[in-house]
Amino acid sequence: MRFTSQTSSDGIYEQLFALGEIPGVLWTPDGAAGNRPLILMGHGGGQHKKAPGVIARARRFVVECGFAVVAVDVPGHGDRPKDEEYNRIATENQARVEAGEDLAPLIAGFQALVARQTVPEWRAVLDAVQELPHVGAGPVGYWGVSLGCGLGVPFVAAESRVRAAVLGLGGALVSAEAAARITVPVEFLMQWDDERVPRAQSLALFDALASAEKTLHANPGEHGEIPAFELDSTLRFFTRHLG
Amino acid sequence: MRFTSQTSSDGIYEQLFALGEIPGVLWTPDGAAGNRPLILMGHGGGQHKKAPGVIARARRFVVECGFAVVAVDVPGHGDRPKDEEYNRIATENQARVEAGEDLAPLIAGFQALVARQTVPEWRAVLDAVQELPHVGAGPVGYWGVSLGCGLGVPFVAAESRVRAAVLGLGGALVSAEAAARITVPVEFLMQWDDERVPRAQSLALFDALASAEKTLHANPGEHGEIPAFELDSTLRFFTRHLG
Repeated sequence: MRFTSQTSSDGIYEQLFALGEIPGVLWTPDGAAGNRPLILMGHGGGQHKKAPGVIARARRFVVECGFAVVAVDVPGHGDRPKDEEYNRIATENQARVEAGEDLAPLIAGFQALVARQTVPEWRAVLDAVQELPHVGAGPVGYWGVSLGCGLGVPFVAAESRVRAAVLGLGGALVSAEAAARITVPVEFLMQWDDERVPRAQSLALFDALASAEKTLHANPGEHGEIPAFELDSTLRFFTRHLG
Repeated sequence: MRFTSQTSSDGIYEQLFALGEIPGVLWTPDGAAGNRPLILMGHGGGQHKKAPGVIARARRFVVECGFAVVAVDVPGHGDRPKDEEYNRIATENQARVEAGEDLAPLIAGFQALVARQTVPEWRAVLDAVQELPHVGAGPVGYWGVSLGCGLGVPFVAAESRVRAAVLGLGGALVSAEAAARITVPVEFLMQWDDERVPRAQSLALFDALASAEKTLHANPGEHGEIPAFELDSTLRFFTRHLG
């Protein structure tokens, strides 16, 4: 793990790093020492580790909860090189949608492919970050919607350090099998008028989760329109399960 | 409006009253003076105005939010006389269920019948309670699930003083038409494994609400098993919209 920059502002210490080929960012409270809960955040498709939505959520986790937050670029996103295979598939999918095929199964297949790479990457990131003295081996949470759900479901299913997860904007096509192996508490965000994920697919993914405690929060609006008050709920959810 | 008893404990002032034939209870903060938000709470089937769940919620609304809370007995419940027509219908419904008919449409029809009586009763209760100097004409919220949803949906649709409502454990069969006239913010509680309300009916009732802000909270478990953390969410919901 190689740190490439450190900055501090508004009570938040930001460290950019590279773990092998994986570029990442770690946020912790200024002057933090000792173990603390760690949230791994997955970004959306076409976004990156420092997308505005990632930063906005990370700031609140750090400042209001004292958590550490880590985010890394998904292959083909942010500071990572274009991935020729992923690009080729994306182009083919685009052509198939234009020829009239359903979008949802194509997204699902693509996310399942990428997850085979990101699950081990993210586990390695947890290993490295939890070695740091200002993070340590505290409880881990996962936050990710849309692509961050498609990649997050197999990650949460595989990684026993994750004690609670916020997921959503994803459907059962991509990950029902992995969802059935998730048993930690989940807050699942669904947009009732999601133009990308069919309503029945969202409900089926929520249904597939094996967690004894899981809550579906559905709000009106399209894929990108999660209301601001859901972040308040997310903070309370992680505080309840990791704090 | 005739008060029949006043008591005070743990910071809560409780007044039992009768408004014509309607027995009710009003809870306010000890020593309250001046206008404040008012929550009308509808109780569940077979319950009454002072059922444990009603009291537990009312206490928190009063103590933590400074609200007034009013609850009255539904006809045939609590301190009200048995209603012969309702009893006859309930007995007939029981026989039809035993003969193999679906329960949900029978519940729905019965609740629609009772609502024709309770909507004007509850409006009269609001009129009377808002005349009191320690309640006044502040914003009104409604809380009711199960029977309290079946009766609450037509009430909230009809009563423009209601600015926000928590509803749930009810289906579209009973009240989709009235739900389509509700435009205030709604938090809608659904039990994912509800043995009384079919899942599709719950989702259809949430879908039918015309509110621009509405949130579905679905949790695992049967009809009576709403998790305790939902009350925390309800307090924040009413504080956001009435506070």
